Amino acid sequence: MHDYDHPGRTNAFLVSTFAHQAILYNDRSVLESHHAAAAWSLFLSTPGHNFLQHLEKAEFKRFRFLVIEAILATDLKRHFEILAEFNAKANEEDAPGIDWTQETDRLLAMQLCIKLADINGPCKKRSLHVQWTYRIAEEFYEQGDEEMALGLPISPYMDRRNPQLARLQESFINHLVAPLCNAYAAAGLLPGTWDDSPDDISPESTDNQNGDGSGNSVFSSGTATPTLSTIRGSPAGRKIFCLQSKHLADNHTRWVAIIKEEQRREEEAKKSRLSPSSPEEAENKTQNLTQRVPEERTTSPQPVMEPITEESPTNCQDSFTF
Amino acid sequence: MHDYDHPGRTNAFLVSTFAHQAILYNDRSVLESHHAAAAWSLFLSTPGHNFLQHLEKAEFKRFRFLVIEAILATDLKRHFEILAEFNAKANEEDAPGIDWTQETDRLLAMQLCIKLADINGPCKKRSLHVQWTYRIAEEFYEQGDEEMALGLPISPYMDRRNPQLARLQESFINHLVAPLCNAYAAAGLLPGTWDDSPDDISPESTDNQNGDGSGNSVFSSGTATPTLSTIRGSPAGRKIFCLQSKHLADNHTRWVAIIKEEQRREEEAKKSRLSPSSPEEAENKTQNLTQRVPEERTTSPQPVMEPITEESPTNCQDSFTF
Repeated sequence: MHDYDHPGRTNAFLVSTFAHQAILYNDRSVLESHHAAAAWSLFLSTPGHNFLQHLEKAEFKRFRFLVIEAILATDLKRHFEILAEFNAKANEEDAPGIDWTQETDRLLAMQLCIKLADINGPCKKRSLHVQWTYRIAEEFYEQGDEEMALGLPISPYMDRRNPQLARLQESFINHLVAPLCNAYAAAGLLPGTWDDSPDDISPESTDNQNGDGSGNSVFSSGTATPTLSTIRGSPAGRKIFCLQSKHLADNHTRWVAIIKEEQRREEEAKKSRLSPSSPEEAENKTQNLTQRVPEERTTSPQPVMEPITEESPTNCQDSFTF
Repeated sequence: MHDYDHPGRTNAFLVSTFAHQAILYNDRSVLESHHAAAAWSLFLSTPGHNFLQHLEKAEFKRFRFLVIEAILATDLKRHFEILAEFNAKANEEDAPGIDWTQETDRLLAMQLCIKLADINGPCKKRSLHVQWTYRIAEEFYEQGDEEMALGLPISPYMDRRNPQLARLQESFINHLVAPLCNAYAAAGLLPGTWDDSPDDISPESTDNQNGDGSGNSVFSSGTATPTLSTIRGSPAGRKIFCLQSKHLADNHTRWVAIIKEEQRREEEAKKSRLSPSSPEEAENKTQNLTQRVPEERTTSPQPVMEPITEESPTNCQDSFTF
């Protein structure tokens, strides 16, 4: 039911254009409110849709409540608030841990789950991730086109004349997906296989991954094996290998490499402006504008992660309001 | 714009009957969301309604935001949360006081203001308050009729076969209106006239009114002058006479007297069941069922306030979901 009847525009766009959905929902969680309401409206429109007919009335109401809570939790405006609440519960130094007998704890875990399901594109293997990246980029560009036609400022990453796929994905992964994925993995909620080989992990890496609850630990070490999580409450030091985390780290590494390559080209282009231009450089420039993702061409060692420029949650929200 | 297009049913009723408004708003602040959205939709439907056309775009957006915040603050589900936030800001022992240069503080004061505007019926003079009491009672009874027809449990105070006007109003004043009115008065926000006559107030009464920030001080003393508030930040000990607080105390006193009278009659009726009934007692019983509010008939001294039975916020919300 999540994302049901999505119009392909962001909340920010709907609000700033006084779209009827924004008026209806008073500028608050506009799309998420619509997804939930439209899906429940469809469900209730005919008895034939009622796959819950055998539930008790109280059970049905509980189910309805949980579904709505889950869908509304996907509003990225609430991302940092929900993530902080989860880490305080599950991952921080003095966290009590998730108490599965408590409804509130189960709801919180469910909210993390649907949030990760919502934005887990970068946790898929590269070919799938790249496909979805093109799709979201095209949706963004269509919004950018409409913004331009309306005389509005074009939103970040939505100007098709200035494609920034690699920067968009790098920032999206670093600021939203990785902290979420790590928090979920650190709490032992990602599927995976136990990994008991002691040689894979450097002590620093392990410390980082079980440390400050910031949820950004996968990317805080420069080791080549950032895909193992130490699980709280598991036999001491036991680690789990999660495919999602591995793909996330791989994809992030690749976007960083692309950004570096782009920067290198930009530098070269700057220099070339001081010297007569060559056909080869002109071709480079064209390639930059259409910005296809480079195919599997680098076999060089994975680059060490750049220190991450901290963005405030507010800035970050503005960039990622799906 | 508040209460615009109100259907005369409570949020709880709309939610429990799967009304289309409840589905549309995912069971959350259903009426309040509808009032705001419907009013803004009307406003935006034709340029002729746009009395804000001379505002800058940013000013217009700010105005729209504030109006929505104000309307949504009238959801009584948020009553205790908003009141506690206001008292922590304005009235508690270590409260920093309202900082009128801060937008968040101004918004909070505005929310208190609209909340009091929403439920200030008992702050009006008795004749008006009684008129509005009949009206809300009739609205409640109509909902009760519908609940009965639908085979639902009849909500508290909504069964016209068992009218409980006095209890409804006494509880409503004690648990919702008085704490709100007192908080607003204690912060110096109710209009009134300075009262410097030292003989009117006993020291206990003054202490209570400027004390614990519970917002219930008007009713915490048994003095005959519970309508003066000591204002924080005013010249030490200076007090203000507020007509709203006076009416509120008067009305409360009257409802308490009626409840006592009803209890007395009930006791008598119980006794009469043990003895042969008289026509007079039968008449009493009838009067109790139709329950008109007694006319100005008591000239006895105001009764000392009963100790208030604390209800949990949750119970209270359930009873007062307009």
